Amino acid sequence: VSQEKISKTTLYLDTLTKPPGSLGKLEDIAIQLAGITNQEAPQVSPPGILVFAADHGIVEEGVSAFPQEVTVQMIRNFLDGGAAINVFARQIGAELQVVDVGAADEVEDKRLVSKKIAAGTRNFLKTDAMTEEQMEAAVLAGTESAEAMIARGIKCLILGEMGIGNTTAASALVSVLAGCSVDQAVGYGTGISNEVKQHKRNVIEEAVKRRNPDNSAPLDVLKKLGGYEIAAITGAILAAAKVKIPVILDGFICTSGAIVASRLNEHVKDYLFAGHVSQEQGHQFALEDIGLEPLLELGLKLGEGTGAALAFPMLEAAVRMRNEMATFDKAGVTNK
Amino acid sequence: VSQEKISKTTLYLDTLTKPPGSLGKLEDIAIQLAGITNQEAPQVSPPGILVFAADHGIVEEGVSAFPQEVTVQMIRNFLDGGAAINVFARQIGAELQVVDVGAADEVEDKRLVSKKIAAGTRNFLKTDAMTEEQMEAAVLAGTESAEAMIARGIKCLILGEMGIGNTTAASALVSVLAGCSVDQAVGYGTGISNEVKQHKRNVIEEAVKRRNPDNSAPLDVLKKLGGYEIAAITGAILAAAKVKIPVILDGFICTSGAIVASRLNEHVKDYLFAGHVSQEQGHQFALEDIGLEPLLELGLKLGEGTGAALAFPMLEAAVRMRNEMATFDKAGVTNK
Repeated sequence: VSQEKISKTTLYLDTLTKPPGSLGKLEDIAIQLAGITNQEAPQVSPPGILVFAADHGIVEEGVSAFPQEVTVQMIRNFLDGGAAINVFARQIGAELQVVDVGAADEVEDKRLVSKKIAAGTRNFLKTDAMTEEQMEAAVLAGTESAEAMIARGIKCLILGEMGIGNTTAASALVSVLAGCSVDQAVGYGTGISNEVKQHKRNVIEEAVKRRNPDNSAPLDVLKKLGGYEIAAITGAILAAAKVKIPVILDGFICTSGAIVASRLNEHVKDYLFAGHVSQEQGHQFALEDIGLEPLLELGLKLGEGTGAALAFPMLEAAVRMRNEMATFDKAGVTNK
Repeated sequence: VSQEKISKTTLYLDTLTKPPGSLGKLEDIAIQLAGITNQEAPQVSPPGILVFAADHGIVEEGVSAFPQEVTVQMIRNFLDGGAAINVFARQIGAELQVVDVGAADEVEDKRLVSKKIAAGTRNFLKTDAMTEEQMEAAVLAGTESAEAMIARGIKCLILGEMGIGNTTAASALVSVLAGCSVDQAVGYGTGISNEVKQHKRNVIEEAVKRRNPDNSAPLDVLKKLGGYEIAAITGAILAAAKVKIPVILDGFICTSGAIVASRLNEHVKDYLFAGHVSQEQGHQFALEDIGLEPLLELGLKLGEGTGAALAFPMLEAAVRMRNEMATFDKAGVTNK
């Protein structure tokens, strides 16, 4: 990020017709965006949304509230414009692209971008979730998807995911990488009972023990416990940061992919905004691990990129504030 | 509010393609809006913003960071489109109207709605801020402004204010009506020093003692300690609630006017959304007094309606979610 643009913007904001610092976090966002983009008058519109979808072998263990078939059903719902993320994408004028990186079933639809690595990961209680090659291909699928969207002109990347069972993979990842206990990293997902949650915790604890990932090697953890959509999110974040495009993270699963990216490159976190903190209790630990503060706290637990899309207007407001407000001098207002 | 529409919407939201309750506060907002508007498919666009501006005799006591002339300078800035609230109004497609209910100086501009009661309130350390007639006229100015904007077709009313010295009036009001101490109700306003804050506290404490308002008579408190813009906000809220139009409150001053409205009619609070909680410490007490939870927490301390305008996209997202999402049945998605 550009320290020069950060300093310049910090000073410039105090010349605008408002008491210094009176726009709070919005001022922090404007400053961070100047640093990220290396521009004095940054833009975040148009935004683009990537929703990576994949299935998870771990669902065999009965860890999820919904059956696996829901992943492809929701892919169809995304393509038809009926899901929550479609609604919020339309509201903010965002292009929405759904990328199949590993759904268990096939969806024949021209609007779907297929970068399928395999029909779901393997059950990581029994074996590594992915091979080395699969993990690398999934990261690359994310990188390529982000690069293509950025090439089409988006100025802000919003990331989301869909995959029945993916809070289990994310909890496993976060417990290993963020140094919290499995108990702290496990939540209710899309709505399991206390009993199933206890079972989910036990499955993850046993799986982490058996897979024994090297927590100083983030890609090893990703390969053994992750998911294709999580790996794709890691790749998309790396690609956006590389070309100075800000990224808004959604919930727990998205943030687990961001932890991997941040471990691969410590500068990545400067390019990230945490859209919100979700009801999933591990999310707070995951955000703290990266060093991010959430913009919204709405008690969401949906995924798809919804919390990130809902936070986008804050970034838009921050750049408009920077770019459109009058200065004390220009407006003839007495500064104190 | 319509209990029937509230019940119906509560059930309907669980038929949409998302786990029940997974959109958190957005679902609460959608339900509340159905109740307020008595409509199954409520709308909040287009929104309208009223910024009431007035001056305060209490500034003679040296309680503010900025000089009084800034009130009319900022009125001109609003009219020219250079203030923060102008920027956020454009972002959300809101009509913005500035109403002079008591600026100390004259602003000759056709775009300004003049409903001036007097050239500022009197110094409430020395005498009542307003006469009975002035207080009533200011409430009526707010009512008429809201009614006119609603007649032009707005579906959501966003309230803001401008007035050098008005955190002092609001702190006095809140300390009497919300039952917190003067110390709890006093903050740094637009950026005074600790020393000036101590002085501001002493002035308010002495003024409350001398004016001795009847805290069971909200209009008596308003007359003795309030401001013309605060009274206008009270009137605007009453007018909007009466015709089932939702209101988004901004910061501390706006909320002090909402306390008066809530005391006059206990049902008013069902029509209110708290856009945010500000840095001004009395704001939290004021919100709790009415029983409101803020939508955003961005560390703002600007006023003008900025925090309310920034929260508007949440209400827009909530109604779009209700009105545009597919049901499980329609999308062919398996419900658990």
